[in-house]
Amino acid sequence: MSQLTEGPRTRDSSRTRARLLEAGRAEFAEYGIAGARVDRIAAAADCNKAMIYAYFNSKDGLFDAVFAAHACSFQEKINFDPDDLPAYAGRLLDGFEDDPAVMRLISWYRLERAASAPMPAVTSANETRLERLRVAQREGRLTTRYEPAAILALVHGIAGSWATRNPEFGALQPDRAARRAAVVDAVARVLAAD
Amino acid sequence: MSQLTEGPRTRDSSRTRARLLEAGRAEFAEYGIAGARVDRIAAAADCNKAMIYAYFNSKDGLFDAVFAAHACSFQEKINFDPDDLPAYAGRLLDGFEDDPAVMRLISWYRLERAASAPMPAVTSANETRLERLRVAQREGRLTTRYEPAAILALVHGIAGSWATRNPEFGALQPDRAARRAAVVDAVARVLAAD
Repeated sequence: MSQLTEGPRTRDSSRTRARLLEAGRAEFAEYGIAGARVDRIAAAADCNKAMIYAYFNSKDGLFDAVFAAHACSFQEKINFDPDDLPAYAGRLLDGFEDDPAVMRLISWYRLERAASAPMPAVTSANETRLERLRVAQREGRLTTRYEPAAILALVHGIAGSWATRNPEFGALQPDRAARRAAVVDAVARVLAAD
Repeated sequence: MSQLTEGPRTRDSSRTRARLLEAGRAEFAEYGIAGARVDRIAAAADCNKAMIYAYFNSKDGLFDAVFAAHACSFQEKINFDPDDLPAYAGRLLDGFEDDPAVMRLISWYRLERAASAPMPAVTSANETRLERLRVAQREGRLTTRYEPAAILALVHGIAGSWATRNPEFGALQPDRAARRAAVVDAVARVLAAD
């Protein structure tokens, strides 16, 4: 293959990969890993099913690539801040509410991938956040009432209070501004200096 | 059919139904609605696959019966108490930790059943709790800082803080006593009288 054709081919390949990730994200968010169908993903990405196996080895491989990409972009967008965790929780809620696929992907991941090898992108996101909480505690900028892992779990639990409710709850919930205000206020109270 | 044979047949039928509900619970908790296989459920319940359709109409019908039974028994066991929501959150955490199938069923329900008709057992559980919170607020026994629906969402969000974390988080979490203490304390702070 000549240099002249490598350029366009590489661009095509990266576009195909991006289309497969996008189509995979929508399919996995809707149906989960077991329920997702590679032929639907291939059709939505306007490419051949064989490309999924060529780029990602398997449906599971595509899910892992989708989830790692999702985890990275969500983390960048939400921006973890140990010095203002109430505001961070508010941004998390915005992320969940702006795109319901986010909590769906997280939930499928927990339900269907628990027995698989840990995903480096997830492990490192956990550890980076815990280390930053540890430093904030050591420097007196954050309550030491709970261990860093408990703070992370509580902040994420509170931020996900609405996104993890049963569908029947939807009709009963207050408007988004009140949902957001409750989450931000609750995190502030939990972590208030005594 | 004579009266003499109806007794034993009814007992058999109720035993078969109970075995199907139990086998269905385990199968749905593991694989979700789409992933569950009626032949595995029938085999685990030691009965014919046709019995599932005879008793529950469909796999979806069996899931609804499993979930309604689960919701009832879980509510009875956990005992909602608007006058001591921190203790209630601690009991919820115990329920989640004693039986991981509980949060799995709740999560599959949210992911896979959102487009279906509301389930009366779930709607009525939501409404009963909200009404009790409303009364507690009216009688001055509970903070009015948040709407009743926000209190319910926050208490459930906090109680589920650990059960909804990603699998990689497991290795980082404190022991169960510390997890429970963090949850109970967080709910107390969120709902403390000012």
